[in-house]
Amino acid sequence: MTHHPSLVLPPSVDIREVGMRDGLQLEKPIPTAAKLRLLEAIVASGVRRVEATSFVSPRAVPALADADAVAAELTRWPGIRFSALVANVRGAVRAIDAGVAHLEYVISASDSHSKANAGRTTAEATAVIGDIADEAHLAGGELEVIVGVAWDCPFDGRTPPRRVLDIVTSAVRQGADRLCLGDTIGTTTPIRMLALLDAVRTACPDVEVGIHLHDTRGTGQANALAAVLAGVRQLDASVGGLGGCPFAPGASGNIATEELVYWLEESGVDTGLELSRVLSAASVAQHAVGHELTSSLLRADGRKSS
Amino acid sequence: MTHHPSLVLPPSVDIREVGMRDGLQLEKPIPTAAKLRLLEAIVASGVRRVEATSFVSPRAVPALADADAVAAELTRWPGIRFSALVANVRGAVRAIDAGVAHLEYVISASDSHSKANAGRTTAEATAVIGDIADEAHLAGGELEVIVGVAWDCPFDGRTPPRRVLDIVTSAVRQGADRLCLGDTIGTTTPIRMLALLDAVRTACPDVEVGIHLHDTRGTGQANALAAVLAGVRQLDASVGGLGGCPFAPGASGNIATEELVYWLEESGVDTGLELSRVLSAASVAQHAVGHELTSSLLRADGRKSS
Repeated sequence: MTHHPSLVLPPSVDIREVGMRDGLQLEKPIPTAAKLRLLEAIVASGVRRVEATSFVSPRAVPALADADAVAAELTRWPGIRFSALVANVRGAVRAIDAGVAHLEYVISASDSHSKANAGRTTAEATAVIGDIADEAHLAGGELEVIVGVAWDCPFDGRTPPRRVLDIVTSAVRQGADRLCLGDTIGTTTPIRMLALLDAVRTACPDVEVGIHLHDTRGTGQANALAAVLAGVRQLDASVGGLGGCPFAPGASGNIATEELVYWLEESGVDTGLELSRVLSAASVAQHAVGHELTSSLLRADGRKSS
Repeated sequence: MTHHPSLVLPPSVDIREVGMRDGLQLEKPIPTAAKLRLLEAIVASGVRRVEATSFVSPRAVPALADADAVAAELTRWPGIRFSALVANVRGAVRAIDAGVAHLEYVISASDSHSKANAGRTTAEATAVIGDIADEAHLAGGELEVIVGVAWDCPFDGRTPPRRVLDIVTSAVRQGADRLCLGDTIGTTTPIRMLALLDAVRTACPDVEVGIHLHDTRGTGQANALAAVLAGVRQLDASVGGLGGCPFAPGASGNIATEELVYWLEESGVDTGLELSRVLSAASVAQHAVGHELTSSLLRADGRKSS
């Protein structure tokens, strides 16, 4: 069942769970113990890669101020590839000191977004990739560069692909091990997405390129299908679609892990995840943040079991 | 931009707006005048096919008890192909008397669903297709047979494809002009969907086959993409994703017209619809039913403009 003349799907897709980081970062801070219960539920789902937290300013992201405490627990699950997001060299050092050697470094492709989020231009953020890569490599880890607002910026509109290509080529030159393209505000659509993906792959043919999607406009899973059809094997997702801004009611976060697992597994694509356990983790996440999450499948499952 | 090596999209897709029927049928009844305001907004979106109402028992579907009054207004828009759903010959005669000659007739592919919804078995429902087709043809209209619960039934589980094939081959033999496969409970996924579509097309090679999707598990737009890639040119959708059952909070209805138009048009596929006007119609729908609709794009648009 993995093949259809117009839809040739791969045998497997590798999902990275980002609910602990992208999902929680805009929520009201929740206790570390509640986070660890969520992490336990996430790990139990069978996922193999988890972005556990971010080492950034606790003033900027109070919800993840307990990064060190969370990181200290990760040795409980030696089989999982944990990673953390960092915003600069200082964050990289903090992450490594806390025991997390696999790092993600986000660079906004538009200057307006980069300045608003990181207080510097895209070029300034790009210039330090090598320093962060060196830290990761010395610690035995890898560095993934994630390009934020890769398709559209909330301030500057459409992102010129040239800006993305400048970041990724520089990243690879400076030692980045992986790349990821982020649809930060959830505006991209299948053909636009693949056009940029193609350009990035052509510019960086030897590096794995993942895709980070948000479901803000209801097109997240369609984009995920398009990405998989185009050979993408690394997708980010968050349990429950965690990641909506609680100050913007109804805002959707990342694509929901359970929805992605549902259609992939039903289509014969192995994810390593067990749907019922992903749904359990999504319920734990919903309880932890204290408001309804946006995942349609989570709600459908809740109706079924109530 | 309509082509990518792994994603060849067609120049156009034909959307049928079903919010007035499938969208409203489970809502609390709203005044006919409010329905007509919604219909005005829908027509202004540029859509060319609208399922306007259904001629069924007002006891079974009180929300559409005003079918005759709605039908009487349809002559205001001579450029639109209006249709109505009927459940039997009597409904067909009522629809035609009210001026609607293009009919949709739903047959549930499982006996349990057919009995629960229509009080008879699938075979009994199939037996009268010819009589309904005759009525439509005598009135100068066409009959589309929609197979409900084509993939899964809430009572019987997976629907054996053989049951669907029996319905569609009989339908064509009895004079049905079009076919449509309905994912009534929103459980299907890309490869399963296409496997059944292929079987139906092989059995009925000369008849157009549309797809009717619900977004209950967040996979509606991914299924729509898969359908379009497999050559489907007729998709049902409802403004705002109207159609969730108000008694099951968060239940998703049909795939949202605006989300479908958004990614299709951005991908270079002509729908004839103008996104901003679809969003206006979705807002009118939301106001008419008096509760938040599930469309992510509608919510994102609401945040943007508030």
